[in-house]
Amino acid sequence: MKEKINIGYIGLGRRGRGMLKACFSQMKDVNVKTICDVSEERIEMGKQLVLEKGGYTPASTTDYHVILADPEIDAVVIMTGWSGRIAIAKESMLAGKYTAIEVGCADTLDECFELVETYEKTGVPVMMLENCCYGRREMMLLNMIKQGLFGELVHCTGGYQHYLPDEDLFKNIDTEDPPHYRLPHYIKENRENYPTHELGPISKFLSINRGNRMVRLNSIATKSVALNEYSAQRFGADSKYATMEYAQGDIVNTIITCANGETILLTLDTTLPRSHYSRNISVRGTKGMSMEDRRVVYLHGITPEKTQDNEAEFFEKYDHPLHREYEAMGTRGGHGGMDWLVCRAFVESVKNGTDTPIDAYDTAAWLCIGCLSAESIRQNGAPVDIPDFTNGKWKDREPAVKGKYCLDEIFEDLSTPIF
Amino acid sequence: MKEKINIGYIGLGRRGRGMLKACFSQMKDVNVKTICDVSEERIEMGKQLVLEKGGYTPASTTDYHVILADPEIDAVVIMTGWSGRIAIAKESMLAGKYTAIEVGCADTLDECFELVETYEKTGVPVMMLENCCYGRREMMLLNMIKQGLFGELVHCTGGYQHYLPDEDLFKNIDTEDPPHYRLPHYIKENRENYPTHELGPISKFLSINRGNRMVRLNSIATKSVALNEYSAQRFGADSKYATMEYAQGDIVNTIITCANGETILLTLDTTLPRSHYSRNISVRGTKGMSMEDRRVVYLHGITPEKTQDNEAEFFEKYDHPLHREYEAMGTRGGHGGMDWLVCRAFVESVKNGTDTPIDAYDTAAWLCIGCLSAESIRQNGAPVDIPDFTNGKWKDREPAVKGKYCLDEIFEDLSTPIF
Repeated sequence: MKEKINIGYIGLGRRGRGMLKACFSQMKDVNVKTICDVSEERIEMGKQLVLEKGGYTPASTTDYHVILADPEIDAVVIMTGWSGRIAIAKESMLAGKYTAIEVGCADTLDECFELVETYEKTGVPVMMLENCCYGRREMMLLNMIKQGLFGELVHCTGGYQHYLPDEDLFKNIDTEDPPHYRLPHYIKENRENYPTHELGPISKFLSINRGNRMVRLNSIATKSVALNEYSAQRFGADSKYATMEYAQGDIVNTIITCANGETILLTLDTTLPRSHYSRNISVRGTKGMSMEDRRVVYLHGITPEKTQDNEAEFFEKYDHPLHREYEAMGTRGGHGGMDWLVCRAFVESVKNGTDTPIDAYDTAAWLCIGCLSAESIRQNGAPVDIPDFTNGKWKDREPAVKGKYCLDEIFEDLSTPIF
Repeated sequence: MKEKINIGYIGLGRRGRGMLKACFSQMKDVNVKTICDVSEERIEMGKQLVLEKGGYTPASTTDYHVILADPEIDAVVIMTGWSGRIAIAKESMLAGKYTAIEVGCADTLDECFELVETYEKTGVPVMMLENCCYGRREMMLLNMIKQGLFGELVHCTGGYQHYLPDEDLFKNIDTEDPPHYRLPHYIKENRENYPTHELGPISKFLSINRGNRMVRLNSIATKSVALNEYSAQRFGADSKYATMEYAQGDIVNTIITCANGETILLTLDTTLPRSHYSRNISVRGTKGMSMEDRRVVYLHGITPEKTQDNEAEFFEKYDHPLHREYEAMGTRGGHGGMDWLVCRAFVESVKNGTDTPIDAYDTAAWLCIGCLSAESIRQNGAPVDIPDFTNGKWKDREPAVKGKYCLDEIFEDLSTPIF
């Protein structure tokens, strides 16, 4: 067990800096040894924030190979844009570094297979930093599910329902060149481009890769009209962004069918105006249900019917032990603690030399949804098989890691504090 | 224009009696001339309630051909079980009677084509009594949509989310033989078996059959476990209903793609316990949205973000003219007025000798979803084409009927009262 680990940190865009600032730079058992970006300006910002939050200045490089070649670095965190991340992750694993990657989609199925092959060949863990797996609502539901309170699970929904034109896609478009890294994807691709915020936790609810697996998906997209209309209003009807063609349908619904007969409905919903952000998490079982958009948890025969807005009482009763600890400790990191907790889960795995609670198989299974959904959309929603990256081992795989960060079982682990 | 019409009424089960009692028997311009059921007991109940509510006793028969052969009867209302309704409807149209049928699904695509052919051959209108088209929320949304307040529509959702084991499927199972007519369908069939409560209004939102049409669907079902678990609890683990196999998946999601690029997500959700009844109506457009389960209406740039439970103010402002009239008149009929209004829409058409606001093409298009969804489910959600019953006429069809009951345009028609 290591007392303190050295990490290399690749990618200092908005999200990269955010996670560095709120989480890694503030951890007493983490030394951010070297940071990396192609932009010197971003590197400066990164150095500044580690100094501010951690009290020290990391080394830096514009070439991530410098990080991979450094024998003192234990782990690498990859926060670059959507494309290219997996290639760096493979190199990192081949260099023997524990590897974390930000959430996203693979461009091709091959990348996903290569990630798993690299893991199997090297034995080096790789973890998608899917923060929403450690969200408070998601963990409470996981806790209740593992206690059997919802009975046999039958269906889950989730979505990335977040209006992005102002916030991401066209933010700073007048001053930044190139534009936000997501925009070219909306121009070129039509797919479920951001499934993991909901699919991550739902996979854990449904024991995917550990007793269950995703077998196939059907994906159907609407027309694409929102970004043209938005751009016409903001930039003028004749502007470049108002007149170009966007491949991305405004709403994409994807239905995944699991080996044990459950279905998962995913909704990508990022371009049309909406009243509120939602991950639309809902769980349906033979004994009860939950529904984020109504803030309701319902246990049949216990909860009164027509109840709504009763989540608070369930948080009180069924908060996941990790969140109880976290709340007691005082909030740190962004997004209600889940950023902090997912980073801690990775750091603890590195320190303990164990596998990661979101492992190579989980990461590959979640990454592949993007390109498979594109394939299904092209075929009018025809079923597309989801590969079994475990090659049959899903039937009786044990949790990759025990202890409080495990997402496959619930541990009341009070032996060591969160950090 | 007729002052008073004679109707024949076929099918006196729970719903048949309900609509007779709350609506037709109380209308001063309707004479329920003859009622029909295979059960003499039900006929007695029917006579009793017409006497009670209408002050007169209708004739009766156990053979619906008696009704069809009666030259004094202007219109026939068919409220029999799911199967067989369409065959009676065709006979009724061939007999020259205006024909209304209760909501439901066709068993075969042929039935739907035959219904349309009969309409085209005879010119006799047929109308599905889809009460939810006249629901207050649905009509307010229709009003707002036709005013362009949501911008260009892109996606709608709807569901029949109603926990049925106690209420329908196994109600009176110990005393009634045969059991509720829906139960055998759940044993034999796996499909979207009840789409029209949501698809009816959504079709009107999206101008289906009048400028738009449904092109294809993909349908995916979960496993079926709820009815076994329910039955084990209620009747014992070894009981007939606990050990039999149910074909019907517990949740069925169906995505319909329209000619103009919109998608419609339908959810059948009738066997798993849930906190509340919902038709899950939501509308997404380039300028705004609505969401039944959150009781929110949101107009971008107008409504504050993160709003919820603000439907009331929209009802105040955008209630459909017909509902304003209805509310002013004082509530009649069941289900918040929509039963009354859909029956009035039919009766007015008969009196005026016009087509019906839900016409033969609408009826066929909504009826066919059941069997097409079964086909798609069998093929793992593969796309299944939805026929164009209008044979190309959908592109520029006018509303079938003008006036206050029209569901294709909005009329502030104050010339004549609701009845």
